[in-house]
This record gives sequence, C-alpha cells and structure tokens, in this order.
Amino acid sequence: VPPQDLNGVGRLGLIAGGGRLPTVIAESCRARGREPFVIRLPGAADPALAAFEGADVGLAELGTSLKALRRAGCRSVCLAGNVRRPDFSALKPDLAALKHLPRLIAAAGKGDDALLRAVLAMFEAEGFEVEGAGAAAPDLLLGPGPLGSLAPGPDAADDAAAAIAAARRLGLTDAGQAAVVRAGRLLAVEDAHGTDAMLARCDGGAGGRDGVLAKVPKPGQDRRVDLPTIGVATVEGAAAAGLAGIVGEAGQLLVVDKAAVRAAADRLGLFVVGVEA
Amino acid sequence: VPPQDLNGVGRLGLIAGGGRLPTVIAESCRARGREPFVIRLPGAADPALAAFEGADVGLAELGTSLKALRRAGCRSVCLAGNVRRPDFSALKPDLAALKHLPRLIAAAGKGDDALLRAVLAMFEAEGFEVEGAGAAAPDLLLGPGPLGSLAPGPDAADDAAAAIAAARRLGLTDAGQAAVVRAGRLLAVEDAHGTDAMLARCDGGAGGRDGVLAKVPKPGQDRRVDLPTIGVATVEGAAAAGLAGIVGEAGQLLVVDKAAVRAAADRLGLFVVGVEA
Repeated sequence: VPPQDLNGVGRLGLIAGGGRLPTVIAESCRARGREPFVIRLPGAADPALAAFEGADVGLAELGTSLKALRRAGCRSVCLAGNVRRPDFSALKPDLAALKHLPRLIAAAGKGDDALLRAVLAMFEAEGFEVEGAGAAAPDLLLGPGPLGSLAPGPDAADDAAAAIAAARRLGLTDAGQAAVVRAGRLLAVEDAHGTDAMLARCDGGAGGRDGVLAKVPKPGQDRRVDLPTIGVATVEGAAAAGLAGIVGEAGQLLVVDKAAVRAAADRLGLFVVGVEA
Repeated sequence: VPPQDLNGVGRLGLIAGGGRLPTVIAESCRARGREPFVIRLPGAADPALAAFEGADVGLAELGTSLKALRRAGCRSVCLAGNVRRPDFSALKPDLAALKHLPRLIAAAGKGDDALLRAVLAMFEAEGFEVEGAGAAAPDLLLGPGPLGSLAPGPDAADDAAAAIAAARRLGLTDAGQAAVVRAGRLLAVEDAHGTDAMLARCDGGAGGRDGVLAKVPKPGQDRRVDLPTIGVATVEGAAAAGLAGIVGEAGQLLVVDKAAVRAAADRLGLFVVGVEA
C-alpha cells in the first residue's frame, strides 16, 4: 500500500484556488499520512503549495488536469479556495474542457451555486469522487462549544440564535451565508462582496462588545463545496465591528486555521462558538 | 368646509423625520388643496418644512404632538422620513409617551418593522387614521412602464426580473428591500446600511451599462410605512455602479422627486421602470 492510501480512501487530488484554505487542507492530509496531489490554478494558488507534488494547470486545461490526477493515482478530488468566475468567452478550452463547456456555461447563468454543482458533476462524470474540504480535512471543522477561552453570555446567546436564523433565511436567497445581529436587530447581511466587506460596514458599536456574526451553509447547498469559512481576518473584522463573537454550526464551518483563530479570538476578547446544526 | 378638508379625508398630520420625502409629501398635499400640519422632529426634519404650519416636537413628547395635531384639525397622520432608532434609556417621555413606552420597547427588540408597527398602532389607539406616503401623495408613486426616455432591453429585462425576485426573497429575511443582479448573477443585497451603501460596493461593471437594481416592499410589510424610496442619489449611485437601470413595482415605490429622477436617469443613460406588482 502506498503511503497516500493508508486510510483506504485513495489519494486526494486537491484543486487549489486562491487563499490559505487549500494549503491548510494539504497540510492536514499530509499530517494524517494521505499525501495529496495538488492542481495549482495559476495566478490564484498559494505559493506554499509548491511544497506538495502537483502541477500548475489552468481552468481551461481540463484534459491536462485529468491526466495528471489519474497518473498521480488520485481517485477523489477536493475543490478548495477562491476562484474568480471565468470569462467563458476568453477561455481557451482543451478538448476535455470543450466537452463540458456548454453545460458549465448554461449552469453559470443560473448562479454561482449552479456553476459549482456543474463543476462537481463534471469531475464525477470523469470518474472521480468529490470530497468536501470538511471530509478531506476534518480537523478544520468547527466543533461544538467554544473554540477559545470565551463563551457567549445570555445577551450574546440571544443575538447568536437570531444571527443563525437570519443567515439561514438569507441562504434561501442565494445572496450569501452570513449575518450580523446586534441587540436583536439584523444589522448586516452578506452578499457577493463577502464577509470581510460586510464586517467593514458595521460600525464599532456602542463601545463594549455587542453583536454576533453567524456564518452557515445555505440550506440545501452541496456541502462538498463552498462550506463557509472563517479565519484570523474574520476575527479581526468582527473585533473592529465591535462584535462580541462569532457563531457557526458545529461540523459546518471551516476554521483556517484553528490555532491562529483561537489565539486571535482570545487576544481580541471575542468568542468563537459552534452550535448544533 | 376649511380648505384642508376639500377632498373629504380630513387634514393630514405629517410626522416628519429626515430627508426630502416629508417635504415632497407636504408640497404634494398643498398642491392638491390639502394643507398639511407638520410635526417636525428636531435635528432631523428638513428646514424647508418651515414653509408649512406645524410644530417642532421631539419623539418623546407624544402628548404635545397629539395635542397639536388635534388642535390643528388633523384626523389622520402620515409618518415619513428617516428616524434614527431612539436610545430608549435616554428619552425623557411625557405622560402620553410613558403610557405607550413599554409596548414600543418590547416591539423594538423584535426589529425595525415591529417597532414601526407599534408606532402606527399607537397613533391608531389615539384615534388617528394612518396614511402611507403613497396614499397621502399618490403622485410620488412610480407608475407602470418607463419613467424617463429609456426602457430596458432584453438582457436588462432578464436581470430586472431576477432582481425583483431576489429583492422579494430578501424581504422575507427582514434584512432589506433591494437587490442588484448583473448578467443573471445576484451581485449585492441591501442590509441595514441601506441602498446607497449597497450601490457603492458594486464596481462599475465591464464598461457598458450592465445590471439592474430592484427595490420592492418586503412581502407582508405594512405599506403605510417604509414604502421603498428612490431619488436622484439612487440614480447616481446606480450609474456609478455601471448599472443599466432601476426597476420597482408600479404603485409600490416612492420617487423623490419624479422630475429630478427622470432628468437624472435621462442624463446618465439609465432606465427607471415600473412593473406590475
């Protein structure tokens, strides 16, 4: 048995967009003895991913990607990291990509979620299993209870419950995954501009820490992609907005990375807490 | 019959918060021979409202307001303009306000809509009819079809329909009333920070005019208050965001004021169009 097959699930092919998430997933896999093979999207993928076996392959060169993944012994893939919506008219698809392109373009017209589902279906049609980041790197998932040393008090617990409810309702609109509630009032919701932009438009509050950010998957969303994510920047943004803390659903929020987020939360005096989904 | 009673609905008491809307309503009433009596909220009301009979009365002096409205012969009231959520602990309520305060504070904890409904119920309990801005000044309502000289083309019509649908779904979350769709993609949704802030975070697009802003009442919202509003600033913000136009529901969107909005839309090359609700 090769080392990457130790846990019986086969080697992981990691399709890496931008941001820290792919790197943290790759490190998590390596630490558990499942050496990943990384397809690094040029101009997006974290340079730190050069520490892993892999290939630099563009979005449109699907045939090249599939060949590299198969040659490396990958049986499943995980898509992680930020990818800009491509300008389909500017892509130079190879033959394999060309085959799937009409379906992808049609899906793209129905929104980001539809496009992602179509990309997953494409890898499945090519014979790969698709793993979510949470399955590939379960140690990244927020657990139940507080992550750091602080826990919400009664007022914050009320705001946390209201923020979770608002974020779930928001998810039905396909607009975003996050909401901020302060003193019972829905202060901000996430849109395509993201969580950091949402936090940046929340003022610092009345002085003390007040209000809660919730981030949850969209109801019915394919949890193999696009699981909501927080990182140190989220904690810092929440602190600058004067919030008391961050709440997510246990097992449904990726924390990149946990040690740094815990340290930032403790340093800035915020709680980060997981509740039952 | 006094002049303010000419159309048989009784004199209008206009409770005026900030912004241009109360002034435009008062002017509309006067133009139709129904001279309003204006309660000007200090620090908020447009100075131009000094041109109308009225009184400067703070939020907490409800007894003074009610007395002035009755003495002026008002049988109905219209609440219009922006009012900051009061800090209830800092209010110095008079006796009449004190009577209603517990109910208002309880409602305030349930969100802005609940607070506004409680304020309406308070005026009704005091014997006044409550008129929406659209009833008090029907000439402010967006009509069906284009307001200016431009109409949406086929692509913009698709985005307009998608934006209307997204804004309606968003309304169910109590987060906001407006959404921007560009090329089929939900780009931005309004939250408590308002429409201008939402437009400010939409980039200018690909160059040509692309994308549509929709603004609709929340489903089930009390249309006697908080009917969505657009003005020249909305048109300018939409133009800066590279949008092709603005869509609202005919009879369900206030335009402040119509001549200026029409002129701005024509000058900046945007459509403003009303569709059947």
